[in-house]
Amino acid sequence: MRNFISVHDVNNIDAMVKKALMYKASPFADKTLGANKRIGLVFLNPSMRTRISTQIAAQNLGMEPIVFNVDKEGWAIEFEEEAIMSGNTVEHVKDAAPIMGKYFDILCIRTFPSLKNKEDDYSELYINQFIKYAGIPVVSLESATLHPLQSLTDIITIQEILNLSHQTSNPKIVITWAPHIKPLPQCVANSFAQWVNKWGKADFVICHPQEYELDDQFTNGATITHQQDEALMNADFVYVKNWSTYTDYGKIYCNDPEWMLTNEKMRLTNNAKLMHCLPVRRNVELSDEVLDSPNCIVTQQAGNRVWAAQAVLSEILQNHKQ
Amino acid sequence: MRNFISVHDVNNIDAMVKKALMYKASPFADKTLGANKRIGLVFLNPSMRTRISTQIAAQNLGMEPIVFNVDKEGWAIEFEEEAIMSGNTVEHVKDAAPIMGKYFDILCIRTFPSLKNKEDDYSELYINQFIKYAGIPVVSLESATLHPLQSLTDIITIQEILNLSHQTSNPKIVITWAPHIKPLPQCVANSFAQWVNKWGKADFVICHPQEYELDDQFTNGATITHQQDEALMNADFVYVKNWSTYTDYGKIYCNDPEWMLTNEKMRLTNNAKLMHCLPVRRNVELSDEVLDSPNCIVTQQAGNRVWAAQAVLSEILQNHKQ
Amino acid sequence: MRNFISVHDVNNIDAMVKKALMYKASPFADKTLGANKRIGLVFLNPSMRTRISTQIAAQNLGMEPIVFNVDKEGWAIEFEEEAIMSGNTVEHVKDAAPIMGKYFDILCIRTFPSLKNKEDDYSELYINQFIKYAGIPVVSLESATLHPLQSLTDIITIQEILNLSHQTSNPKIVITWAPHIKPLPQCVANSFAQWVNKWGKADFVICHPQEYELDDQFTNGATITHQQDEALMNADFVYVKNWSTYTDYGKIYCNDPEWMLTNEKMRLTNNAKLMHCLPVRRNVELSDEVLDSPNCIVTQQAGNRVWAAQAVLSEILQNHKQ
Repeated sequence: MRNFISVHDVNNIDAMVKKALMYKASPFADKTLGANKRIGLVFLNPSMRTRISTQIAAQNLGMEPIVFNVDKEGWAIEFEEEAIMSGNTVEHVKDAAPIMGKYFDILCIRTFPSLKNKEDDYSELYINQFIKYAGIPVVSLESATLHPLQSLTDIITIQEILNLSHQTSNPKIVITWAPHIKPLPQCVANSFAQWVNKWGKADFVICHPQEYELDDQFTNGATITHQQDEALMNADFVYVKNWSTYTDYGKIYCNDPEWMLTNEKMRLTNNAKLMHCLPVRRNVELSDEVLDSPNCIVTQQAGNRVWAAQAVLSEILQNHKQ
Repeated sequence: MRNFISVHDVNNIDAMVKKALMYKASPFADKTLGANKRIGLVFLNPSMRTRISTQIAAQNLGMEPIVFNVDKEGWAIEFEEEAIMSGNTVEHVKDAAPIMGKYFDILCIRTFPSLKNKEDDYSELYINQFIKYAGIPVVSLESATLHPLQSLTDIITIQEILNLSHQTSNPKIVITWAPHIKPLPQCVANSFAQWVNKWGKADFVICHPQEYELDDQFTNGATITHQQDEALMNADFVYVKNWSTYTDYGKIYCNDPEWMLTNEKMRLTNNAKLMHCLPVRRNVELSDEVLDSPNCIVTQQAGNRVWAAQAVLSEILQNHKQ
Repeated sequence: MRNFISVHDVNNIDAMVKKALMYKASPFADKTLGANKRIGLVFLNPSMRTRISTQIAAQNLGMEPIVFNVDKEGWAIEFEEEAIMSGNTVEHVKDAAPIMGKYFDILCIRTFPSLKNKEDDYSELYINQFIKYAGIPVVSLESATLHPLQSLTDIITIQEILNLSHQTSNPKIVITWAPHIKPLPQCVANSFAQWVNKWGKADFVICHPQEYELDDQFTNGATITHQQDEALMNADFVYVKNWSTYTDYGKIYCNDPEWMLTNEKMRLTNNAKLMHCLPVRRNVELSDEVLDSPNCIVTQQAGNRVWAAQAVLSEILQNHKQ
């Protein structure tokens, strides 16, 4: 693995999951692997969980992380080729990225979607420009359309629960759309769909109001339904997530509070575990009672972000070495 | 000691002071105590001295500090139970704190008062919610009503001076209110009073204009006066600090420039040392001449923040171990 | 060397260049030199390259860097003596700097010019106040009128190219003014002139529109011309940089796009290498084709910032030790 941008960069999801769970059991097993290596964590969009968990993962491998919050430190980047830079942008990615490549051994970067121009967002212009010009391995800390570290974390967490319960049959996994007050990216949902589909060890259902269809390059292989009750029936894992519309791009259509997940709805499931990538808006996306129930595994999930990142960085360091 | 929130968390102030002065003499005496431990420094309110000194203290103990400035990185936290989060807050402390507990071994956090709602501020809602939900030791980097790391530092500095002068009788310590242009919290004054009272080795006087009475849960045991001249008479230590009103909460009443400390007033003292927690507004709280005099120990005091923090973190690490 | 503020702090430029290139070949050669030493990187003005490169340089020497972005963390400093601080500034440099001196072993600081008051800017009030009050070695990360780490980097990069080409005769080095949309400091141009003049191993030409004359305390010794074509003729190195007016201070006079550097103009040179300190506004200061040509060495230059900083910090650590 050179870059980690989507599920396509991973040959064997199960091997990655196993590696991550090994690090969870033994965080400092490879404490010298990254010695004298430096990792840049560059945020074009702010972050809490992703920043801290990746920083910890890097330190566990003996690397020195350097955090740079772009929007906070007055550094607006130009991404358009041949731009005449007489406006607000102060530096072109063609000039900025190669320097990252000089300073760091691995570049971790968070970009973001405009939610206005679908074509631009779905071409992943920003992160691809960084890959093109940085000249070192690039790890996505969330891009315009995907969030692969989150999805790897999600699979790790599901596998952990399955190991514990000695379940060997494929679980039923449901991702269900939730109301929100702001138009959010499709990243987490796209990426979760892409990973669960490639993983292939689940009965996978995506459920949302009609207007919130996702790009089928990610969802292909899953059952898609607009009936939440039907979807939840006998589910083993319920992943709750809001996203804005994909077709008529970046909008909030229906925001029906009926889609909020409650304990009553959870009773339809097979005593399902409740997942969310966080941050979550209580009593908007989910009711308090669901989040406070013993079946809620969102803290376990967020904690696992460290081990997902550590497995990915370890993989890149090892390949880099050879 | 599990948490460090107020003087009540400390069994033996003198032992803590001794430990801090040991670290000052030998900063790397316990360089491996915190190996592979991680400390989160979370600021809901910005900081310079507290941030840097705690970061250094943690590094001296071999810990890896991770700083997270909340207000700077777009992460508004909800503290009310059962809130319907359709407003500005993006994450509930019930969800945020447990993740801190996963990522860190010790959580250091700075909260702040509203200065509007006395009941809320004095119930210490914010920091108590973090303690309740984080599941790991919590250290206050200043809360709504107290600033214990500052107060421990203050006692350390006083003890250091007493050791140097071989004074064995109880010193006269005066905290005197000073004018300011903004309504400030009562934290530093509350906390200093609480610590000096528990320490018990001083003739302790609190002096302020009538309207600036502090909560007597902190001041009980001290002599309180509204006559600055009388208070300063024969003082060995003069601590200057502004605070806003407590009774009619969070206001600036009188802001009489006569309360500014000058060298003329210092002549009433027993050649007293001058203390301030910084930052200080020159020629508003104190005159230049006082701050620039050889009796001013504010730099020594700020430097000692490192050793106070190191003693506290060391204590928590040692108890954690057992 | 105690401080590093200008070329006057360096006895032997060639020795510094050699040291930097040694570190480039062997970054961890002095990995223990800075053990248990702490370096503060304080930014009164934001930074990307300078911050990251100095942080890496410090880590390569085993030091622990602590970054503090002043303007981002609500800490406005007063520099005027005897100020009555009832306005926006919250802390005087007389109180802030000595604490830096307690917390750090070396203080690296970036100040900035007002571009309004020439006398104040050219007296370097801010950085000089920090030197006066910090009591520890101070390294300029760019000040009001100079940028010595950049200039040392520039000489390192030029020497590196000369070594590679086995050129022993003095190169022709040209710094040429470029258009920009904002009034920028004269720092980089002043400092480059100061360093190349002291270095003395070049045929050095400064070229700019008539109104953009620099302070002759820095340029004395160089050939100054207003004819860009004439200047570029047979140049071995072309350094492109905008600056605002010095005489009628801080203004944009002519902003003639004819001064933008293009490949056509580069054809006048002796196949010159193209230098810029970055960030650069493409198609305003320089055309895309120049920046994308194989003769452009701006990435090499930015990468060398690490080795310049490492040579400077190493020098200070070694002198400090004795």
